[in-house]
Amino acid sequence: MESKTSMVVRYQETDQMGIVHHSVYPIWFEAARTDFIAQAGLHYRDMEQAGVWLPLKSLTCRFIHGAKYEDVVTVTTKVTNLTPARVEFSYQVENQDGVLLATGSTLHGFTTPQLKPISLKKHFPQFWEVIEKAAGLTSQ
Amino acid sequence: MESKTSMVVRYQETDQMGIVHHSVYPIWFEAARTDFIAQAGLHYRDMEQAGVWLPLKSLTCRFIHGAKYEDVVTVTTKVTNLTPARVEFSYQVENQDGVLLATGSTLHGFTTPQLKPISLKKHFPQFWEVIEKAAGLTSQ
Amino acid sequence: MESKTSMVVRYQETDQMGIVHHSVYPIWFEAARTDFIAQAGLHYRDMEQAGVWLPLKSLTCRFIHGAKYEDVVTVTTKVTNLTPARVEFSYQVENQDGVLLATGSTLHGFTTPQLKPISLKKHFPQFWEVIEKAAGLTSQ
Amino acid sequence: MESKTSMVVRYQETDQMGIVHHSVYPIWFEAARTDFIAQAGLHYRDMEQAGVWLPLKSLTCRFIHGAKYEDVVTVTTKVTNLTPARVEFSYQVENQDGVLLATGSTLHGFTTPQLKPISLKKHFPQFWEVIEKAAGLTSQ
Repeated sequence: MESKTSMVVRYQETDQMGIVHHSVYPIWFEAARTDFIAQAGLHYRDMEQAGVWLPLKSLTCRFIHGAKYEDVVTVTTKVTNLTPARVEFSYQVENQDGVLLATGSTLHGFTTPQLKPISLKKHFPQFWEVIEKAAGLTSQ
Repeated sequence: MESKTSMVVRYQETDQMGIVHHSVYPIWFEAARTDFIAQAGLHYRDMEQAGVWLPLKSLTCRFIHGAKYEDVVTVTTKVTNLTPARVEFSYQVENQDGVLLATGSTLHGFTTPQLKPISLKKHFPQFWEVIEKAAGLTSQ
Repeated sequence: MESKTSMVVRYQETDQMGIVHHSVYPIWFEAARTDFIAQAGLHYRDMEQAGVWLPLKSLTCRFIHGAKYEDVVTVTTKVTNLTPARVEFSYQVENQDGVLLATGSTLHGFTTPQLKPISLKKHFPQFWEVIEKAAGLTSQ
Repeated sequence: MESKTSMVVRYQETDQMGIVHHSVYPIWFEAARTDFIAQAGLHYRDMEQAGVWLPLKSLTCRFIHGAKYEDVVTVTTKVTNLTPARVEFSYQVENQDGVLLATGSTLHGFTTPQLKPISLKKHFPQFWEVIEKAAGLTSQ
């Protein structure tokens, strides 16, 4: 599964270079990830309340072309790696003209609210099944 | 004219109180203001490129109820004061259940890119007419 | 008591106008408020852990002159109103040349972590005494 | 050369996990980079005004331990790669107890304000010399 999430660039997201500040891309990735999970049939809010957290372990981002105020950017999101202990999401950001602005990835562990690692497959099979299906990784 | 602009609350917008940090509301106001101007038939981006800036002179915000992650908030925006030299926008923020979260206002001067005050009515009548009409203030 | 808190303006805090975005000022106020409380002899972190929260009820800000990247801004903070139920802080922001950039105020209620209003004086006299003394409001 | 830059964690920087949101680390890196350049004897503000920009080409970040509100974090910054066309900075973030919170790197191109790549060595030898010396990379 791939999700597509569109957002209008906010003035506050620009910096004095006249383009969107690079620290905004992880925020867009996160909004897109929320949307991916929602489109898969869950809500990350509910997962957190059930006791599953997805803290970040690492982040990468490559910046290709600057985004401008009032651009409509679309983030394409998919799962590129999944084990019972962790999940990796990958992102592509394009503007309204189809220009590729950035790509990136985030790696998350599955943890308790005390940040203790857990096996999602074992402890929350109902969430695991939804994410595994949405990931669509055949050789998992 | 009133515009309505909806946004999904981002995880990054929350703080350790578990609700949206108060500094986010001015950012939502701004996104809603961009949308108001677009619905009026202009783009603030184009106004800036034509040489009209709207720097903030003052801001007020009253916080009534906390917004939560994944809430869908709707900002209702209107012009509550307009002179050739300045414009005041007012905002109401509600969540998906119709609960009023916050109200606020922003006062902007019309200036050049060098922040020199101008009369919008005199120097940019094409923009003035659109905003005056959108403001819908009969006793202007 | 007045506290003075200095910060170097971050690139990320600027916007495409080339000055600091207005939504940053409430963040600076908050950093300065943390510092005020620390200089008074408490830590807001400890107050929160003891069960006292200070959610914002309202915010005002007047913007006078733009702050620039790498400016060193100093926020002067004081308590301008204090009752057992709420506290108002006021702020002045200046740059390294003594130019006044902005003034503002924040009004906070004293609450439980469930956001239920409390009397700080009655329930947390140890905190009340410190804040009352730091406020230095003779006609309280 | 290594620079060390300390900052107090702001409340606004936390999220509902109770720790600093991951999108804040790139902002700390940037503040630390500003400081590195200043300690080397330049100001990035002056470089920009002279016509040299350092837009990001890529970013990596590894998150090891969460930062908390009111922590004093210290970012250690150094140049880990330098050519006439680009520079890579690397960062380590520790808290006041010496706990390693995160590591990261940013890769920047040297460009004109129109984002056209330039050779810093050739076009701005006065900046190149300062950065090369601060980099202290013997096998450059």
